[in-house]
Amino acid sequence: MAKVKKINHIAIAVHDIDEAAAFWRDALGLTLDHVEDVPSQKSKVAFFPIGDCEVELVEPTATDTGVAKFLADKGAGMHHLCLEVDDIDGMLTALSKKGIRLINEKPVVLPGRRMAFIHPKSANGVLVELYQVD
Amino acid sequence: MAKVKKINHIAIAVHDIDEAAAFWRDALGLTLDHVEDVPSQKSKVAFFPIGDCEVELVEPTATDTGVAKFLADKGAGMHHLCLEVDDIDGMLTALSKKGIRLINEKPVVLPGRRMAFIHPKSANGVLVELYQVD
Repeated sequence: MAKVKKINHIAIAVHDIDEAAAFWRDALGLTLDHVEDVPSQKSKVAFFPIGDCEVELVEPTATDTGVAKFLADKGAGMHHLCLEVDDIDGMLTALSKKGIRLINEKPVVLPGRRMAFIHPKSANGVLVELYQVD
Repeated sequence: MAKVKKINHIAIAVHDIDEAAAFWRDALGLTLDHVEDVPSQKSKVAFFPIGDCEVELVEPTATDTGVAKFLADKGAGMHHLCLEVDDIDGMLTALSKKGIRLINEKPVVLPGRRMAFIHPKSANGVLVELYQVD
């Protein structure tokens, strides 16, 4: 049976990644691992490792993304919770059978990982991302 | 210098802990460690360990709490991010000096831990809880 292994990251939607990074780096003393452009997601992301998880800041680079709409509606804040699983196909099949609403019925394949989102309506209002790191 | 050690937990505000637990336990297959009444916080909480972090479901048991107001305003969803630190007094002093707005200037002492909240206005819209486990 497919299993959740760990929390991979908590994603935080921000208007400006450089400004936002100041809190996590300069105030809390965390290390900014790297900043990355993700054209496929129309976003720029910054990673702060904490223990074996990460805080990921996400700044949209276009106005038509889910994160851009989230920011426009609610302002900056926690956007999604990413859980790493050992078998994303098995997990998605099992969730579907249990009546869980999925945003991605099949994993989206990205370099080094496959990911899919569970709909917040099935997850106590939380946008849950599933990751399988290849 | 005080340091962040790990993510201790992600707290999710829910209307009904038993109903909400179904997603994390029955759908995702996580283990429900325990459910606890926390009269001092007017809430009932359920813990699901994931790796070395936890997902904590929080159901308010009164209508005048922060979590109850959050639920009334926004519905269920991620409520706060708890970071474990090695020296909460040192961390709060350092944050104050850097102009970070704190909800608790001094730690609240609970059995086995001391905790304080950072105001979301200073933390990219995220309600950040700091924990020192004694």
